[in-house]
Amino acid sequence: MKAEILAIGTELLLGEIVDTNSAWLAARLADLGVEVWWSVRLGDDLDRVVEALRQALGRCDLVITVGGLGPTDDDITREAVARVIGEEPRVDPALEASLRRYFAERGRTMPEMNLKQAWLVPSAQSLPNPLGTAPGWLVRHQGRIIVTLPGPPWEMERMWLEEALPRLQLPSATLFRRTFKTWGLGESAVAELLGSWTRCPEPRVATYARLDGIHVRVAARGSTLEEAQARAAPALAAVEAALGPFIWGYDDDTLAGLARQLLMERGATLATLESLTGGMLGQEICAVPGASDVYLGGGVAYSASAKARFGVPSEVLERSGTVAEETARHMARAACRWFGADWGLATTGVAGPAEIEGKPVGTVFVGLQGPGREEVKALSLGPRPRHVVRQRTVYAALALLWRSLSPEPPG
Amino acid sequence: MKAEILAIGTELLLGEIVDTNSAWLAARLADLGVEVWWSVRLGDDLDRVVEALRQALGRCDLVITVGGLGPTDDDITREAVARVIGEEPRVDPALEASLRRYFAERGRTMPEMNLKQAWLVPSAQSLPNPLGTAPGWLVRHQGRIIVTLPGPPWEMERMWLEEALPRLQLPSATLFRRTFKTWGLGESAVAELLGSWTRCPEPRVATYARLDGIHVRVAARGSTLEEAQARAAPALAAVEAALGPFIWGYDDDTLAGLARQLLMERGATLATLESLTGGMLGQEICAVPGASDVYLGGGVAYSASAKARFGVPSEVLERSGTVAEETARHMARAACRWFGADWGLATTGVAGPAEIEGKPVGTVFVGLQGPGREEVKALSLGPRPRHVVRQRTVYAALALLWRSLSPEPPG
Repeated sequence: MKAEILAIGTELLLGEIVDTNSAWLAARLADLGVEVWWSVRLGDDLDRVVEALRQALGRCDLVITVGGLGPTDDDITREAVARVIGEEPRVDPALEASLRRYFAERGRTMPEMNLKQAWLVPSAQSLPNPLGTAPGWLVRHQGRIIVTLPGPPWEMERMWLEEALPRLQLPSATLFRRTFKTWGLGESAVAELLGSWTRCPEPRVATYARLDGIHVRVAARGSTLEEAQARAAPALAAVEAALGPFIWGYDDDTLAGLARQLLMERGATLATLESLTGGMLGQEICAVPGASDVYLGGGVAYSASAKARFGVPSEVLERSGTVAEETARHMARAACRWFGADWGLATTGVAGPAEIEGKPVGTVFVGLQGPGREEVKALSLGPRPRHVVRQRTVYAALALLWRSLSPEPPG
Repeated sequence: MKAEILAIGTELLLGEIVDTNSAWLAARLADLGVEVWWSVRLGDDLDRVVEALRQALGRCDLVITVGGLGPTDDDITREAVARVIGEEPRVDPALEASLRRYFAERGRTMPEMNLKQAWLVPSAQSLPNPLGTAPGWLVRHQGRIIVTLPGPPWEMERMWLEEALPRLQLPSATLFRRTFKTWGLGESAVAELLGSWTRCPEPRVATYARLDGIHVRVAARGSTLEEAQARAAPALAAVEAALGPFIWGYDDDTLAGLARQLLMERGATLATLESLTGGMLGQEICAVPGASDVYLGGGVAYSASAKARFGVPSEVLERSGTVAEETARHMARAACRWFGADWGLATTGVAGPAEIEGKPVGTVFVGLQGPGREEVKALSLGPRPRHVVRQRTVYAALALLWRSLSPEPPG
């Protein structure tokens, strides 16, 4: 089965919004063995959307549109689909009632412009949207399927999973894939360790440079998921053997999730003290559900006075400055002591755009303190933009914790 | 001038990476009045990339490819461009020397596979890449232009701005646009206040629901930027008049940047104490260059004991729990007192997936403390995913600060 995704919205072509929806949908479809052959972004232009829909229906079995279901005049997805299949949209009384109820429950009267969100065409089933005012459509037309989904990601994701998929009866998964996530090697080094595997057409082994390390993806197809997995097996074993000590996780694993899990296993707690990352490390840790089981809290000590307040000795700050190995070490100690945690992680460095204390952008120190363990990593992350330096620092800190908590710390 | 963007990488079609590059390029092109008509994602498949390049050259003047310039075998952009223009790539001695130097400067020997990054074809100029190992190409072929850029965003952005643009001599800007950013109204309410302006084809007025509020974009074209701006003027005045008190910023303004600026004007300082946002508020504030001028620091007080440690009275926590109006008020006070700041912002609430203390997901309290001012906002942000609840809370906190610091606080 071939699919095409049409992301609709002038803001996409003007670069005012990043299209995360297409990637999310593509990943779900890939898992089902549905191949996304085209993924196209379009403006809110009725003629152009009609043209793209016709083209998509000519070359794919399943066409998914995202966006353009809002109440305003530039939301034209319903009009475009109706025109392509030659049907007239009408207000559906049941949809109208549920829409008016949605507003009433929020103590508001429905603006009349929202009425178009109650439109339906004869070939369409309505896809309910309890999270918003835009229901979707599932249209079957001349052997093809069109699914229209709303633009807000959480509405789109729920509608695809809860409403569209159960009605579509897609084939079950036939693509097996596994992503290995590594830390400590560059992309060329990973590729060299993998040798000829990266030139093998099936199973396919590909490398990707990410901020949380080099990822290696192994993918294979089969008539069933089991068959695909069996085909992938030799490559899986080879990647594991080649990169073993550098692999920190698989698939949806995150360094923060892994840190939580390793701390849970030891019944240990964690605290953070951040300078250049300004809370980003804490927020990465808290993004994991259940973070509160291990994470006691953290401090953002942007100024020298705030660092001292958390217990970094003033003489250290005077002697070494705020961006220094010694400071990172004392910040990690302070994190442990101040929050009463077993493990402490600290970051200090120069995020840019300007130098600090004569140190260039990208000079970063990551400190770790734990039971019988104290370590500082010096990193050179420049010249890169501020947010990249900060994000990379967060991952370096979490990778340092991973290595320290792993049963057999690698190289 | 019409442009097409081809983002190349199987990971895009498998949904393993979000294509931020196309949005960034589209925004830069729009500002120059270059219309992006097509924006397509493709896999690492030589035949399909060749086909897409041919199609793009048939309908657009400028074709920009992003990605596929790495050293590994699945990086096939150079091969595809060479095939489409019928030229043979060869190793360029100067490029090879500079590549070997890049590795030598980092104390490494160049892996032989990187040699393909030194390829050049006769019609291509090389675009230097001091940030990585992948130079780009600028190809002129039969009146069309192809620009190949690398995939890592910071390499791509620098190469476009510093290397490609100066060589391209594109027309100067002919699109004027301004985005108004509002807080405190829903999208339908904004649209109703704007009345018939949203149905006006030129200047175009469009609304977008964002996590930091409803955005309104006004856009107009002209033969010069001045002419375009003059055409937009009536719409700009109308939007300003209709939404005035709700507008917190324009274009690239951010709530955090605005907060820094308002605090700077008053010579005031800020501290934060976060529960459900876990550092996200601090990191949003620190993302602004120069944040350290006003931001003293912050605490992540995920546990009740950490909240108490920062000075939230235990009896408040016992009486009201961690998710409560009273707790948010005392957390904001604690932020001020503990860091010695003039203003304090605090967040507490239920990010999900589970309830806390019988309160449903999305129950959030945002506290503010400042000279002669104390305020708590209660929010109902559910049912939405964890990261949306947290991000929305961060913006609600910053919007509360904005209202309190604005000369004439609206509504």
